[in-house]
Amino acid sequence: MKLPEEKDILRGDIRAVARAIRAVEDDWPGSRELLTRLFPHAGRALILGITGPPGAGKSTLVDRLTTRFRKAGKTVGVVAVDPTSPFTGGAILGDRIRMQNHATDDGVFIRSMATRGALGGLSATTAGALLILDASSKDILIVETVGVGQDEVDIASEADIAVVVLVPGLGDEVQALKAGIMEIADVFVVNKADRDGADRLASEIEMMLSLTGETKGDRPPVVRTVASASQGIDDLVKTIEEVRGRRDANGEMARRRRERLLRQFETQVEVLVMAKVRRRIDALDSSLKLRERVQNRSIDPYSAADETVSAAAE
Amino acid sequence: MKLPEEKDILRGDIRAVARAIRAVEDDWPGSRELLTRLFPHAGRALILGITGPPGAGKSTLVDRLTTRFRKAGKTVGVVAVDPTSPFTGGAILGDRIRMQNHATDDGVFIRSMATRGALGGLSATTAGALLILDASSKDILIVETVGVGQDEVDIASEADIAVVVLVPGLGDEVQALKAGIMEIADVFVVNKADRDGADRLASEIEMMLSLTGETKGDRPPVVRTVASASQGIDDLVKTIEEVRGRRDANGEMARRRRERLLRQFETQVEVLVMAKVRRRIDALDSSLKLRERVQNRSIDPYSAADETVSAAAE
Repeated sequence: MKLPEEKDILRGDIRAVARAIRAVEDDWPGSRELLTRLFPHAGRALILGITGPPGAGKSTLVDRLTTRFRKAGKTVGVVAVDPTSPFTGGAILGDRIRMQNHATDDGVFIRSMATRGALGGLSATTAGALLILDASSKDILIVETVGVGQDEVDIASEADIAVVVLVPGLGDEVQALKAGIMEIADVFVVNKADRDGADRLASEIEMMLSLTGETKGDRPPVVRTVASASQGIDDLVKTIEEVRGRRDANGEMARRRRERLLRQFETQVEVLVMAKVRRRIDALDSSLKLRERVQNRSIDPYSAADETVSAAAE
Repeated sequence: MKLPEEKDILRGDIRAVARAIRAVEDDWPGSRELLTRLFPHAGRALILGITGPPGAGKSTLVDRLTTRFRKAGKTVGVVAVDPTSPFTGGAILGDRIRMQNHATDDGVFIRSMATRGALGGLSATTAGALLILDASSKDILIVETVGVGQDEVDIASEADIAVVVLVPGLGDEVQALKAGIMEIADVFVVNKADRDGADRLASEIEMMLSLTGETKGDRPPVVRTVASASQGIDDLVKTIEEVRGRRDANGEMARRRRERLLRQFETQVEVLVMAKVRRRIDALDSSLKLRERVQNRSIDPYSAADETVSAAAE
């Protein structure tokens, strides 16, 4: 559990970066202090959130975007918190091949995050990983999440720019997912746009956006891609850059970053307070036996919590 | 914001139950005390968790299970926390019809939960709703969640019996979802079993289960259904009852319920402590200006959290 050297992280050494992220994930001693030291070196990268239903082709899109950014001379960090991603759980089904496209490229760092049991929650761990990658001088950070689940959607929505990926033909029930993620989109992608139904899906999105009452220029743009054939990627990057330019100009980018820092602060307060409270409860419990009483139903969980918190405050 | 009468909830009055759940969701004054008073009347119902990828037909299956349980004279409560469910977000796409199958039946109560922004988190709100339905004398409680997202999978896994629904032909990437939910299954359902690939999917599941080293009798059973045609539902109910019987006998059911109560207690401690800490921070912040300093990057979120928690402890 030896923490990596700060200077190795800053120069983007892949092993040091990987070790730092692991330290944050597993809450090694000193990992919080490491993040504090890295903080002044971060805040430069553009953070893209890529989200959408399973089967939308998010990982392929992330791969193609990475290639495209690399060609433009930019370094890229990818954090995949999508359990369906080939970078994470999906790998069980045997598709690690895409990662290998960048395996020999020091300008790319790809990391999957455990989606369950993360200490301090998924969003705290993801924020830590992004801070490390940012400090390691990556220009573009991509965080890929599946567009279902409260934490997962929140993570994408906290990016500088949230890209929502949809596909034609997944069926109404799957598309219903979009109901939950429509509101967070800064850019829509209709992927697999060579399939039947792509026009209809794009029109549906445009129509829905027209109902928001925003003028056309303010609405999230809709881009068509066929990620597997690398089609539309230039267009998507151009659109992302336009959105970025507009937001830099009107102060929206700065506002989002301030908001994100505030949420990170609040999350960290929760992490610290809860760790403290848990220790206090463990100490109290030997006398109160609340856990035992809850388990045998001699007290309800609500009253037991009241009693614990009152006792802890004394 | 008038709380319903306890006696009306206990006799299963639909309006009183609906109002009580709303009170818990929106954290009305007195809602915690109401749950405390209902607690002694709960603990009797069987809680089924139904989870699986979007498009697996979970809602149709829940509907058919409800019909089947009703025929056997049992009352049913359904809590849908699936954003793809026609009971919740999916309703936007216009499928409320299935709910109407039970609209005139006082023995069925169906409630969708907001998946975002729930006070105290999704699992606390769901636990409250299940407690209310349990106290209202429902025999069977079904909690439907989409099998993606940490909170959503956790909720299903905390049921008495977790049913994981899969379907053939959703594509490898979608099926990769199962990697995240396989471990929580007590019963597998291969739904839409009349489709091509149903045999292959069932064999894949059986093969995967055989690798766990458990003897065949201990492995989760695999049931085939065509929920839309009401096929296999009797079989599924029989299987659920067998699993229940085995677990009642070997003490596993009691163990799970004790564990669930313990987690509810811990969640409630978190809810109370965090509410308290937030008030304290608001009071502190006027002097410390930490939020402002975090937002303009003059302090990092980790150090700011340390400072807050130290100050709050004084």
